[in-house]
Amino acid sequence: MAAITLEDLDRITREEVPFVGQMGVVYESVSDGFVTARLPFRDDLLRPGGTVTGPAMMGLGDIVMYAAVLSRIGPVKLAVTTSLTANFLRRPKPGDIIAEGKLLKCGQRLAYGEVTLFSESEDDPVCHITSTYSIPPRDQR
Amino acid sequence: MAAITLEDLDRITREEVPFVGQMGVVYESVSDGFVTARLPFRDDLLRPGGTVTGPAMMGLGDIVMYAAVLSRIGPVKLAVTTSLTANFLRRPKPGDIIAEGKLLKCGQRLAYGEVTLFSESEDDPVCHITSTYSIPPRDQR
Amino acid sequence: MAAITLEDLDRITREEVPFVGQMGVVYESVSDGFVTARLPFRDDLLRPGGTVTGPAMMGLGDIVMYAAVLSRIGPVKLAVTTSLTANFLRRPKPGDIIAEGKLLKCGQRLAYGEVTLFSESEDDPVCHITSTYSIPPRDQR
Amino acid sequence: MAAITLEDLDRITREEVPFVGQMGVVYESVSDGFVTARLPFRDDLLRPGGTVTGPAMMGLGDIVMYAAVLSRIGPVKLAVTTSLTANFLRRPKPGDIIAEGKLLKCGQRLAYGEVTLFSESEDDPVCHITSTYSIPPRDQR
Repeated sequence: MAAITLEDLDRITREEVPFVGQMGVVYESVSDGFVTARLPFRDDLLRPGGTVTGPAMMGLGDIVMYAAVLSRIGPVKLAVTTSLTANFLRRPKPGDIIAEGKLLKCGQRLAYGEVTLFSESEDDPVCHITSTYSIPPRDQR
Repeated sequence: MAAITLEDLDRITREEVPFVGQMGVVYESVSDGFVTARLPFRDDLLRPGGTVTGPAMMGLGDIVMYAAVLSRIGPVKLAVTTSLTANFLRRPKPGDIIAEGKLLKCGQRLAYGEVTLFSESEDDPVCHITSTYSIPPRDQR
Repeated sequence: MAAITLEDLDRITREEVPFVGQMGVVYESVSDGFVTARLPFRDDLLRPGGTVTGPAMMGLGDIVMYAAVLSRIGPVKLAVTTSLTANFLRRPKPGDIIAEGKLLKCGQRLAYGEVTLFSESEDDPVCHITSTYSIPPRDQR
Repeated sequence: MAAITLEDLDRITREEVPFVGQMGVVYESVSDGFVTARLPFRDDLLRPGGTVTGPAMMGLGDIVMYAAVLSRIGPVKLAVTTSLTANFLRRPKPGDIIAEGKLLKCGQRLAYGEVTLFSESEDDPVCHITSTYSIPPRDQR
């Protein structure tokens, strides 16, 4: 069972992380250590070549990893990204981007996981993101 | 000497990469393989803890690396990021973010470089980004 | 079906990549895009704290990713790593390390995949590696 | 001034990290946050194409980053790599590899830096490595 609800993820994203919140990310499912979300297509997410811009995919991956961490530890807002690596595998066509996030480790101080991004019309991933989050000590949450 | 001007970098960013362009990045200098830029502070770039959000810093790093590639090869819009790694070193206080980008390699097919981000009020870097760009063959530019 | 056999993987590793070959990696299975291997424990792979040293795990991950590429394209010796990211998740106890490699992309020029490492006595991964390989053009293989 | 001597770095590497120690790394200089070292050429470090194998360069980068951390905090053996990213920029010719390591951050819990590798006969870097080390709390050193 997840330590946070879809409603809380949605609210935290919109209210607390406006730069990503304004992208319009929709969380679709959450369970312990797993989150799926959708980035609805918008023209202003394109870059030359008619493909979705990398920073939009990195923003999506970062927030989905944040959500996967919160799905384990609950609404600890001060968890912060310490590193993120994105590999862009195929140019997504204009269309929604689907993100599947999965925690691979959640220790006392560090969490690590991967987020795989798909273009809604294709089977093969368009981007693969791995990321580390730093978790604040219990008395500072 | 740079293969692209500050004016062209500015125009390409605003017109062709609107997701990053709307962040308001200002290019401050360009020479062959080196670019500096500034991300003016805005409240909507904050995240919980009162610090600038990671995706904004990654968007800044990505566009500055793009600019550093164009400073060498000229306005080749179809150069695309193949990978980006961001390490967040210190939480920037609210304030402008300064980016210094430097090409470490620019081959026929791949370019690689680093972008170091500073908070305007501090000496130590807040984020270090490395990134690889894929360069299209000459006949497809 | 794999484009290379376990016997060929073993021979290429021992004869052509002696630095990794001398580690004693044993391939256990190969199919199209998937490779599993085992690094038998040896005292000289330890580091302070009694744990397997990071470079041994990176060497294992690198060769397993190479094997996963060859499982798709056949024995193309000149495929080379262009980047590798390793995240060390838990300190492995002294014991064999098991590697599971999986291709996520294999294009004309670049292949990308992930290798997850386990300590033989534990369920949770000890290391997660992602890596990009550059594939030579057909006429240069 | 460095918090560790060249002699101590050499001894720790040979005695405590034999997998890397047997590569024959020679430390050339150490100051606070900066370390240079040399990997003398040996035939068994080659891979197909006559170039130095990636895992040897990653082993060199990892130990030089470890040395850079110890140059700041002293001989704390239990500092461990939490992540390492290597980008291979040019294929080094057979010959010594020179490493220049530099700390970019050294906090209470995490250190981060970069190591640039050169082939002794060439000006341009052959490999660029960034790495994060986890530092044990003072009472566990």
